[in-house]
Amino acid sequence: MDIKYMKRALDIARLGEGHVNPNPLVGAVIVKNDKIIGEGYHEYYGGHHAEINAFKNAICDVSGATMYVTLEPCSHFGKTPPCANEIVRKGISKVVIATLDPNPLVSGNGVKVLKDNNIKVVTGVLENEARKLNEVFIKYITTNLPFCILKTAMTLDGKIATRIGDSKWITNEFSRNYVHHIRNKVSSIMVGVGTVLADNPHLTTRLDIPNPKSPIRIIVDTYAKTPLDSNVLSCDSKTIIATTSLACDEKLNKLRNKGAQIIVTPTKDDKVDLTFLMKELGRMNIDSVLLEGGSTLNYTAINENLVDKVISFVSPKIIGGYNAKTPVGGYGKDYIKDAVKLNNIDVLRFGDDIMIEGYVRKDD
Amino acid sequence: MDIKYMKRALDIARLGEGHVNPNPLVGAVIVKNDKIIGEGYHEYYGGHHAEINAFKNAICDVSGATMYVTLEPCSHFGKTPPCANEIVRKGISKVVIATLDPNPLVSGNGVKVLKDNNIKVVTGVLENEARKLNEVFIKYITTNLPFCILKTAMTLDGKIATRIGDSKWITNEFSRNYVHHIRNKVSSIMVGVGTVLADNPHLTTRLDIPNPKSPIRIIVDTYAKTPLDSNVLSCDSKTIIATTSLACDEKLNKLRNKGAQIIVTPTKDDKVDLTFLMKELGRMNIDSVLLEGGSTLNYTAINENLVDKVISFVSPKIIGGYNAKTPVGGYGKDYIKDAVKLNNIDVLRFGDDIMIEGYVRKDD
Repeated sequence: MDIKYMKRALDIARLGEGHVNPNPLVGAVIVKNDKIIGEGYHEYYGGHHAEINAFKNAICDVSGATMYVTLEPCSHFGKTPPCANEIVRKGISKVVIATLDPNPLVSGNGVKVLKDNNIKVVTGVLENEARKLNEVFIKYITTNLPFCILKTAMTLDGKIATRIGDSKWITNEFSRNYVHHIRNKVSSIMVGVGTVLADNPHLTTRLDIPNPKSPIRIIVDTYAKTPLDSNVLSCDSKTIIATTSLACDEKLNKLRNKGAQIIVTPTKDDKVDLTFLMKELGRMNIDSVLLEGGSTLNYTAINENLVDKVISFVSPKIIGGYNAKTPVGGYGKDYIKDAVKLNNIDVLRFGDDIMIEGYVRKDD
Repeated sequence: MDIKYMKRALDIARLGEGHVNPNPLVGAVIVKNDKIIGEGYHEYYGGHHAEINAFKNAICDVSGATMYVTLEPCSHFGKTPPCANEIVRKGISKVVIATLDPNPLVSGNGVKVLKDNNIKVVTGVLENEARKLNEVFIKYITTNLPFCILKTAMTLDGKIATRIGDSKWITNEFSRNYVHHIRNKVSSIMVGVGTVLADNPHLTTRLDIPNPKSPIRIIVDTYAKTPLDSNVLSCDSKTIIATTSLACDEKLNKLRNKGAQIIVTPTKDDKVDLTFLMKELGRMNIDSVLLEGGSTLNYTAINENLVDKVISFVSPKIIGGYNAKTPVGGYGKDYIKDAVKLNNIDVLRFGDDIMIEGYVRKDD
């Protein structure tokens, strides 16, 4: 029974995807006499918390009811009053929680308020699902660094483009559409200037859903080579150019005039310092980065341990080519034993394409 | 009911794997009053056909029974008398056949014999499964060329080795064990001399089963560089060195003295002519080749349209490396639209490894 209602709470939490960052996705369901009498979710950044929305939507008196909530109710005064206090005030008799607040500064405080007020508390119901749902929030709140998803698309012989750079299209329309769903969820998308110069992409979210949300575009561009008429400078979405002191000031001013925000990082190996940049993005409330980099940028991100999750599309085609680029280039590891390993592997099919998803093992 | 018994016939047909090449895998089940009263399969090259073994194993009178057989009974005098005649002689009243003989010269003849003798015949039951079971035989009997399986193993970023050539191990023990099951089924295994020089492999079948069968080893070696103390020249299995007139005769004689068979092909782009070699192998009754080539050999095989099936293991690790080799190298296609496309894609998991298998679309 607990699982059924928690599953519902997780399902409605997901409705906030793309709109709550850098807040967590939270859903709450109020149950009385084995009937759902109210439910709500965190709908947008700065909006009511899920618990409050569930109370607002309740169709009858909630006193004595059980609340299922995907994340520990807050106990601190933030943008809204503490939910734990509101739960007490409303006379809820039992609270079932999927996962405690991952923020070590406040974790357990909400439960304490509830228990101190004689409310029965159960924790850990569908905890893994709840933690996966909020993998972005958990990384961000505990490290202040954005959760970084490396997304690649390759042929079955490991190429992201042919020897002369053709890449349209490696994957099929189902795979490409799914990528737009990912874009819709993340705060930002990052590419190298090489991709801008080669493909002139928009990097926006194109989806046939209400209010698709385009991520902030981040161009890693050591010398500020991004052309002023690039599609990434279109006004569909905000754009950040991450550059270095190696770039020409005049060009930077022109890019600023086109609406781009400029972040100047120190140089590292004569390039943008990616670790510095990620910290800066975290400071700017950017909780997630979808990295669709070229071969070199991807390697830097992997090698500097900035990647949390990898989503790799594999299309069953073979193009060959000693000089064709692969998803991750750069200098490379010398030994297989030093490979960056992924775990919690999931495999999905999109028509004939195969999507492999996994998490970078941080314990190695 | 037909499906149940045909499934059984297919299952026992598979028991001949590795032992009947270049003959087909065939299973036969005799059913009377909804009971299996006899079954048999083609056990080894030159042995009795499945139908005959089923008769031999029958536990009671087979007259009036139904026979389920995975391949059309033969109607010609080969190594054994025609099975169709034997079926008539035994008084079988109905024959259910999965697939007709793929050999255009004899296809349908067996059915004709049966029908001419008033036996009821049903065809096409589990035909796809039966054709897949005998994909090697079908290719070989219709083209006289070996069925070629390209097997590769790569990291999630498309590498078959690190930048300095380390490849031990990309895949896990489950994947590697499965490869030995494939080796057990095929007539031959082919690598380039580069693989011999780099890894000094045995290329034998190492399996914990009764009578594992090692394939004939074929080394593609334009200049006959295979060292005389290579493991591929061990006496576990037969070895063929495919070379050209560019090789030194003295070395060829030494290789012959080590037991290797030498095939001299014309040169094509200063290398072994792979198409010529495949035809030669076909003439030698080699019905299947497991190609575990390096990057360059694999591209030649793909580009010359010699590959029928691709089995690609993907291991969820990332190693990077601009210079690391990919499964298929060579010159490469210029455009994605010219890619060699695969269909009938299957995906299997071996622990965290993913195996992607598909067939080269011959219609493009």
